[in-house]
Amino acid sequence: MSFPSINLTLPSWLGEILPSPEQLFHTAESRMALVIELAAANIRQGTGGPFGAAVFDLDSGRLLAPGLNLVTAASCSVAHAELVALMTAQRLVGNFSLAAAGFNVELTSSTEPCAMCLGALPWAGIKQLSCGARDSDARAIGFDEGDKPPHWPVLLEKRGIRVVRDICRPQAVAVLEQYRRQGGEIYNGKG
Amino acid sequence: MSFPSINLTLPSWLGEILPSPEQLFHTAESRMALVIELAAANIRQGTGGPFGAAVFDLDSGRLLAPGLNLVTAASCSVAHAELVALMTAQRLVGNFSLAAAGFNVELTSSTEPCAMCLGALPWAGIKQLSCGARDSDARAIGFDEGDKPPHWPVLLEKRGIRVVRDICRPQAVAVLEQYRRQGGEIYNGKG
Repeated sequence: MSFPSINLTLPSWLGEILPSPEQLFHTAESRMALVIELAAANIRQGTGGPFGAAVFDLDSGRLLAPGLNLVTAASCSVAHAELVALMTAQRLVGNFSLAAAGFNVELTSSTEPCAMCLGALPWAGIKQLSCGARDSDARAIGFDEGDKPPHWPVLLEKRGIRVVRDICRPQAVAVLEQYRRQGGEIYNGKG
Repeated sequence: MSFPSINLTLPSWLGEILPSPEQLFHTAESRMALVIELAAANIRQGTGGPFGAAVFDLDSGRLLAPGLNLVTAASCSVAHAELVALMTAQRLVGNFSLAAAGFNVELTSSTEPCAMCLGALPWAGIKQLSCGARDSDARAIGFDEGDKPPHWPVLLEKRGIRVVRDICRPQAVAVLEQYRRQGGEIYNGKG
């Protein structure tokens, strides 16, 4: 028996909206503005759900890797924006821990992570999580965020991962509401 | 800017230990025996951590997809055995929900899932989770299983995912202990 490789490829339109490699992102708002634009573009292009994420090096201000929700496009329930960004960054630096590779990394997410993505954070070697919309905002349009431990931000902080919430939350929520208005698929794996 | 695709490829030695496609797995113990052999082979071959998993169709008894821990081999913190098995199965059936694709699926895991893999289960369309070693067994050799919600089996059952624990637990624990004895890397993303 043989089995296919798992392959997740970012869509080609991404190249058109990404900044030049020289652009620096030194503020939480500038980083969030990019991931909200990723989420908005993903639903405009019809390539996935209304979620964007990115990995930034806080020391240099550089974008290390973007991430988009590719669940429907890639037929892959694991392909949430946060995990796509983390896996892409790890591939680029050649290490499963971004911290071990020498980077002081923020994962920026247009919406607070679901239970899966939350559980993935401590394994990835990130130093900071920055979120736009709350998970309650995602639930409000029908997404299931899973069973997260109570007080999850406190648990991340205990692991040395700073948590920054509500960055540009209204703009992040606007993308979720646009997705609902246009009748986007709400996938929850319920089959 | 352009970014590489994410690619996770099962090692070529896997073909040597997998059964013929005709072999059926109608008992929990037969399914667990296969994933424990996957975990054992993964550490013998040096391709990753001491964890194996597989997706089985409970109706036909067929293996749909195997999974191995590829964290170190693929430089990918997301490449836990459970997620590799689920992503491979989803790719084969062409749907992010195995239930929506018409399958009545068990995810069999040699050790209880970490917080990330646990959070991934409701999105994948599985009907049953079967585990060998307890998460406390993985913690006993130094692995961090993450912050799982208390009473996580009850939460899965509420979502319609049956949980079966302690299948062949001694044999599953033996692989963890072999990994510790041979000095295998305990990666926790702490950098």
